[in-house]
Amino acid sequence: MSLSLNQWTTRRWSVAEAVDGCARHGLEAIGLWREKVAETGLAESVKLVRAAGLRVSSLCRGGFLTAGGLPGEEGRTAFARALEENRRAIDEAAELEAACLVLVVGGLPGVKPGEELPGSGFTRDLAGARERVAEALAELAPYAGERGVRLALEPLHPIYCPDRAVLSTLGQALELCLPYPEERVGVVVDTFHVWWDPRLLADVARAGNRIASYQVCDYLHPLPADVLLGRGMMGDGVIGFGPITRAVLDAGYTGDIEVEIFNAEVWAADPDEVLATMKARYADVVLP
Amino acid sequence: MSLSLNQWTTRRWSVAEAVDGCARHGLEAIGLWREKVAETGLAESVKLVRAAGLRVSSLCRGGFLTAGGLPGEEGRTAFARALEENRRAIDEAAELEAACLVLVVGGLPGVKPGEELPGSGFTRDLAGARERVAEALAELAPYAGERGVRLALEPLHPIYCPDRAVLSTLGQALELCLPYPEERVGVVVDTFHVWWDPRLLADVARAGNRIASYQVCDYLHPLPADVLLGRGMMGDGVIGFGPITRAVLDAGYTGDIEVEIFNAEVWAADPDEVLATMKARYADVVLP
Repeated sequence: MSLSLNQWTTRRWSVAEAVDGCARHGLEAIGLWREKVAETGLAESVKLVRAAGLRVSSLCRGGFLTAGGLPGEEGRTAFARALEENRRAIDEAAELEAACLVLVVGGLPGVKPGEELPGSGFTRDLAGARERVAEALAELAPYAGERGVRLALEPLHPIYCPDRAVLSTLGQALELCLPYPEERVGVVVDTFHVWWDPRLLADVARAGNRIASYQVCDYLHPLPADVLLGRGMMGDGVIGFGPITRAVLDAGYTGDIEVEIFNAEVWAADPDEVLATMKARYADVVLP
Repeated sequence: MSLSLNQWTTRRWSVAEAVDGCARHGLEAIGLWREKVAETGLAESVKLVRAAGLRVSSLCRGGFLTAGGLPGEEGRTAFARALEENRRAIDEAAELEAACLVLVVGGLPGVKPGEELPGSGFTRDLAGARERVAEALAELAPYAGERGVRLALEPLHPIYCPDRAVLSTLGQALELCLPYPEERVGVVVDTFHVWWDPRLLADVARAGNRIASYQVCDYLHPLPADVLLGRGMMGDGVIGFGPITRAVLDAGYTGDIEVEIFNAEVWAADPDEVLATMKARYADVVLP
């Protein structure tokens, strides 16, 4: 197991710069984002990570599968578009030989990430939205299987339930996985999202080989006004990482540990300093 | 079952004004807050609610039981003080003949509600903090039993886990109840806190007679910068109340339904208008 840089942590860096940064700091793995890969070009991104000998610990991200919960034609069109976009993401993950494609499943149909609630044109049918995710997974898992890509369902903190993920706990994610082989559909354990869950350690044990990705960052308190940016450097928040990391290791996880931080101060800092801090904190507070 | 005004919804009103407001709007029950009762005086508050013929659907609130997780003498003193304060709250609930005393159990030891993290002097031992709650309950439940008071454990939204409640799900609350008779220790189902929980409907059914209080308000999206004030008038947010209310009724709950809103706009509005809106929305969106 080794430390991996999720490239959103050093958001100002291109794929080439992030790959160079990993090499400079002795990291063996990187988590890539589709937006950054698109800027660089898929073929060029593949070339860069191969040349540097890096593992791609994840590709972020597919998902947003719930819009099919809108009524009628609008819902059908949105569902078809979401599947098409996710097939593209799967193709990219295959090219990059990413360990998994992270899926952020989407919020209530019609609620756009980070935006105000629309006056109408959204649904409060949370149970229905969750069923849409299961339906989409049934479409995408075989496609991923044919391409050797592992899908990784990411439960998000319940604060993001309205607009980003109706998948809110690890236990819920594990139930969604059940119809599929573990090498085809797994889960992400992201400390920010799941640290509070009273069932976390038991569900991590239950997850076993379903754990496709272990992502770490801290949970800041109080959260900033834009709650998306409440992810802090490990040690700066309230999470006790030891028991969580120990449980992930005990469950048999042998993949990379990715540091994924969304944080205005971290993004404003010198990325090389961020990597140095990240390595030190990883050793100090993340490892049990 | 009937609609109850939790008096924090009309925060500017004293106990006397809130009691009058309930009478004026034909409500049969009120949820009181200890701070407001203290301003009016306990004996006078009892007199007011009795004279108006109101049921006291809850007294808010006891709790903050986790400070015993601080090390050494500091922890022991804090734990003893918390128990003492909660015994006072139980005495008040007995005098008021409240249907329950709501317990907000407290966050990580040393983290103060709504404040920045202290540089040191707090603990990230979440599992330990949860054990402290169980220990405190073992002290308080017999005391409450002798006075005929029912304790009501309130799981809070995970966003409040650092500073207000390490009790984060209804399932976790039900496990804490198990050692005690159901008329002695129950749970609060507050839609704001639990709407996102994938196990909610199953756990409400499991709760059965443990449901000591059903509180409703909506979950606003996006949340305001002060996340404590994200509680909105029913219909203004993302919660689909129908299935939750139905589950609470099917579980056998026959108590009052309390509307508890923390919201700067609601507090700034004319309280009589707030009550009128609350009654209309209750009929329109809360009842199944």
